[in-house]
Amino acid sequence: MATRIPSSVRTFCATIPRRRHFQLIHRSPSFLERKMSTKQDFKQEPHKIPGPIEVADEVLFANAHPSMSHVSPDFVPVFGDCIRMLREVLFTTDGQPFLIAGSGTLGWDQVAANLIEPGENALVLHTGYFGDSFAECFGAYGANVDQLKAEIGGVVSQADIEKALKSKKYKVITFTHVDTSTGVLSDAKLIAETVKKVSPDTLTVLDGVCSVASEEIRMDAWGIDVVLTATQKGLGVPPGLSVLCASQKAVKVSESRKSPVTSYYASWKKWLPIMRAYEKGTPAYFATPPVNLVYALQASLTTITKSKPTLEERFEAHRRASQRIKAVAKQLGMKQVPLDPAIAANGMSALYYPHGLVASDLLPRLAQKGVVVAGGLHSAIKDKYFRVGHMGITVVDPSRGDVEKVVASLEASVAEAFASKEVVVE
Amino acid sequence: MATRIPSSVRTFCATIPRRRHFQLIHRSPSFLERKMSTKQDFKQEPHKIPGPIEVADEVLFANAHPSMSHVSPDFVPVFGDCIRMLREVLFTTDGQPFLIAGSGTLGWDQVAANLIEPGENALVLHTGYFGDSFAECFGAYGANVDQLKAEIGGVVSQADIEKALKSKKYKVITFTHVDTSTGVLSDAKLIAETVKKVSPDTLTVLDGVCSVASEEIRMDAWGIDVVLTATQKGLGVPPGLSVLCASQKAVKVSESRKSPVTSYYASWKKWLPIMRAYEKGTPAYFATPPVNLVYALQASLTTITKSKPTLEERFEAHRRASQRIKAVAKQLGMKQVPLDPAIAANGMSALYYPHGLVASDLLPRLAQKGVVVAGGLHSAIKDKYFRVGHMGITVVDPSRGDVEKVVASLEASVAEAFASKEVVVE
Repeated sequence: MATRIPSSVRTFCATIPRRRHFQLIHRSPSFLERKMSTKQDFKQEPHKIPGPIEVADEVLFANAHPSMSHVSPDFVPVFGDCIRMLREVLFTTDGQPFLIAGSGTLGWDQVAANLIEPGENALVLHTGYFGDSFAECFGAYGANVDQLKAEIGGVVSQADIEKALKSKKYKVITFTHVDTSTGVLSDAKLIAETVKKVSPDTLTVLDGVCSVASEEIRMDAWGIDVVLTATQKGLGVPPGLSVLCASQKAVKVSESRKSPVTSYYASWKKWLPIMRAYEKGTPAYFATPPVNLVYALQASLTTITKSKPTLEERFEAHRRASQRIKAVAKQLGMKQVPLDPAIAANGMSALYYPHGLVASDLLPRLAQKGVVVAGGLHSAIKDKYFRVGHMGITVVDPSRGDVEKVVASLEASVAEAFASKEVVVE
Repeated sequence: MATRIPSSVRTFCATIPRRRHFQLIHRSPSFLERKMSTKQDFKQEPHKIPGPIEVADEVLFANAHPSMSHVSPDFVPVFGDCIRMLREVLFTTDGQPFLIAGSGTLGWDQVAANLIEPGENALVLHTGYFGDSFAECFGAYGANVDQLKAEIGGVVSQADIEKALKSKKYKVITFTHVDTSTGVLSDAKLIAETVKKVSPDTLTVLDGVCSVASEEIRMDAWGIDVVLTATQKGLGVPPGLSVLCASQKAVKVSESRKSPVTSYYASWKKWLPIMRAYEKGTPAYFATPPVNLVYALQASLTTITKSKPTLEERFEAHRRASQRIKAVAKQLGMKQVPLDPAIAANGMSALYYPHGLVASDLLPRLAQKGVVVAGGLHSAIKDKYFRVGHMGITVVDPSRGDVEKVVASLEASVAEAFASKEVVVE
């Protein structure tokens, strides 16, 4: 078909010097005169380890990706890859991932906003700080919340869970897989089995912020309806991405709710078409995804799912490192916060200070040796214990020497702390 | 005071070989055997420009910062710096910044969740796609929303705004400073003056996702109550951080609300103590901040507020680049979507395709020349126009040659497109 060009445009086009264009377009001054950084030569700066978790060089390099539109054909498959690989990490074939810019906390809002309607009941199993907060989040969305509180360092008994589930109709039950404030590991498989047996309609929600990719989670086989997490722990990526995976049952519950979702940003109704589009390879827009973090997540998930060690070997590496650190801690006179080794997390340790020592005796000495640990978080025992992370590349890549460095620093710091005191030996 | 050490711990400590510790602690294998990357030598990979916006090498390098705890004494002042520098960019002395992991969209939730109570009225000035979405967000939180819709490419008249404000008591009025879907720039100062004159209790909310740091915003002088934005446009940082600044008046309105905030993650009640603590140099925890993005924001805000050009010169550079690109577009037969040059954004252009050309004639040719533009977004004219960004380092650092490359690529692509057609000259 013939095209009409206004004569003024034709005249202007005729004046455009071709050579100048070629130079300007093909000889951008920005890149030709300098050597760009490559994945191979990028090495992060020296820093204290391992807190909260080490991030691999290639993941940080991905986080420094040049600016890229979220609807670019180069980026769309990266997002799709993350969705697919997340399913592998959680052992689910049809779970629906949601990757949304936000902190791990946004996962709670997603659950409370989409799966509970005002006036419905939620049961929160409490093994530390994060139970209280999740309960408060449910309250903000109008749910009635009951908490079953374990003693500090303990887990809620199966008998108590059964009793509660029989007493009332709960829309959801939640538990913190690993509560960072106590280092307690809940038995996800057993809890899900109990729910299925006693109250099969209840949705089982696993808060996996501190457990995904460091503890085994088999979403389909165990019947978990929601796993929510964040990037900055076992996934080994900087923080800023709320990572959630919902079973098809959970998605249907959200789709068939009667009252509208009282959040805009956390609404699955908004995000579901986006996640499905990106997985199919088509861009879609609701809110701009955190593009660089998605590149970083892709880099880390590729390592986790596509290279040695396998996922099972990864979990085993976490168990081994955990046993090593906990055994040394015991020898140094440190009791664990978890009341039983069977309910202690494999990706972190919560350790009481040795008898006679306090935070200021130990933490500065560890820091001086290049080891970062976290102080206490559980308000009832805040000043009596500290927490050390041992997950991700710290335990999976022994050539880094991170675990041995933590062990050696703990030993030396305790010995120095005691030596600095006037000591009466029992 | 005497300290008692259990004898088993004493025995164990005595067995710890000092030399081994020294080696393990001070000769970490991770860093001594390799050359780390430095800010000076980090150069991002070649990529198409300028879409959506170019990010400087030093900002990307900051985004690749080694893992750092959000409560680390090294990180806390970085967060505080961002809070203080954001005030400078917005010309406010006592505005309260909120920096929260999330997309720009989360800023709407913050406004709708904290400043409006169910049943109260919100007035949305609509100059494109984003007005509808902000209105929908208000609806999710139970507000009654009225929209004043401008014609495509236009702005709402002062007379209509006055009339609406006189007709009903509005808790908030919102406008999109630059609507990315139309490239229309609203007159923030005039709108705020009108509100103060007609309805002084109404809070004025400026959606500055596409305008902060590329268009002048004087929060205090003009009496703007909320500026909400994101990192990935004029601030020149990868996406993933919701950036908002509230006047003390707005903070007080949120603090004196009668009904509870029906969001957990977007609740200022939760975030206010965190922001205040970080500004004072003390860490506090509600949800993990996106640490690396905060480092990146610090790097960019430092450039924007502490080096040449000044903020005023920066705005002027945006105006100049905008005029250059719009003048060339006009010569190429492209009409602007904004109906009047006086209401056209300075950080982007929304341009109708030249008569006789469509998206597939132009966009692939631009991409081939290394220039990324965005297709249409406003549903009524989606296939008739495209959008090109010219903000941040692209316009502030002429040595990059970005603007000239965009100009040259536009000229060449239009000429090629016409040349490829069977042309009938008018």
